[in-house]
Amino acid sequence: MKLYDMKQAPNPRRVRIFLAEKGIEIPSQQIDIGAGENLKAPFLAINPRGTLPTLQFDDGSIIDESIAICRYFEMSQPEPNLMGRDAMEAAIIECWQRQMEFDGIMSVASIFRNTAPNFAKRARPGSGPDTPQIPALAERGSILLSAFYESLNTRLGETEFIAGDRYTIADITAFVTVDFAKWVKMRVPEAHSNTQRWYDAISARPSSTA
Amino acid sequence: MKLYDMKQAPNPRRVRIFLAEKGIEIPSQQIDIGAGENLKAPFLAINPRGTLPTLQFDDGSIIDESIAICRYFEMSQPEPNLMGRDAMEAAIIECWQRQMEFDGIMSVASIFRNTAPNFAKRARPGSGPDTPQIPALAERGSILLSAFYESLNTRLGETEFIAGDRYTIADITAFVTVDFAKWVKMRVPEAHSNTQRWYDAISARPSSTA
Repeated sequence: MKLYDMKQAPNPRRVRIFLAEKGIEIPSQQIDIGAGENLKAPFLAINPRGTLPTLQFDDGSIIDESIAICRYFEMSQPEPNLMGRDAMEAAIIECWQRQMEFDGIMSVASIFRNTAPNFAKRARPGSGPDTPQIPALAERGSILLSAFYESLNTRLGETEFIAGDRYTIADITAFVTVDFAKWVKMRVPEAHSNTQRWYDAISARPSSTA
Repeated sequence: MKLYDMKQAPNPRRVRIFLAEKGIEIPSQQIDIGAGENLKAPFLAINPRGTLPTLQFDDGSIIDESIAICRYFEMSQPEPNLMGRDAMEAAIIECWQRQMEFDGIMSVASIFRNTAPNFAKRARPGSGPDTPQIPALAERGSILLSAFYESLNTRLGETEFIAGDRYTIADITAFVTVDFAKWVKMRVPEAHSNTQRWYDAISARPSSTA
């Protein structure tokens, strides 16, 4: 088993933090997205979609979606539990995880991918068709990310963690979103004390450096 | 328990098909997105995000992401299984489900929401900030949907169903995508015989009319 990874990229980091929380260590190999290594023949032979992270098994089969990789390890080693212990809890955590993903990480990505000079002709990750950047989509991303920050601060005024009273995969996605947003210079507003309290707590976990 | 639903909309349909496959019947109430009923006070009091489908429990708590609603019913009633029986199968199905969602249904949505006159100022679903339509995003959606159709036909030349040799939630998302794409007049190309074979088979299931 091997994890194809990129130290700086947000989605691989979600998996690394998840594994660190589980205490699972697996071999990994760095792939440089900035240099286009994910779109060159050697990596495309492993994963034709050209996306990271990619988990490869010894028979060559792969899992190439962050949350699906997390699901594999959650079901293989259920504790410490990060995705829910029963139907109700799993569904609530999945709601929050997806909300953090769609409203958070995707808003940052839409700013970053539609403005970064490296991605002028490839505003979408992976090996799909060329898609030029759309400046208006970066603007929309800024509006959505601001709204995300407001809702995050509201939520964290109600509960200790994103999905309730314990740390889950939803916190991982939100935490990675906040750090990813530094790339586009949209930090958590200083007045958002609930989010600041939560961010400090998550940062203090050993997994945060993964 | 009650499902807030809209008969015509693609995401609620995913849940209805899933429930039909499980043989689960629950009360439902129609909410008219076209008339903006999802953004008015009575529904926002139930789900502040204003999105459909929304599953509401008798204590008022809600689950408002299609896949999370499916997860709830999958864990409550595991058979017939639609999301995987072990870690490996669940991860593979989740990969395919997400790929159908990101590359398929979201591509159609980006065309529809950025062109339909009803959504001129609200190109994103739900109660978030106003976001004007972006014509270039609809164009990008057309490129991505064409690429999705190509990859779908390739995949269905290799396997009977999307995620392998049996029907799963990945087929539900893909099937709903294909029907949703009729709204934007981008049907499956006639030459895509693998997809046509699969579409006919899925259409023949009783759940397809849900």
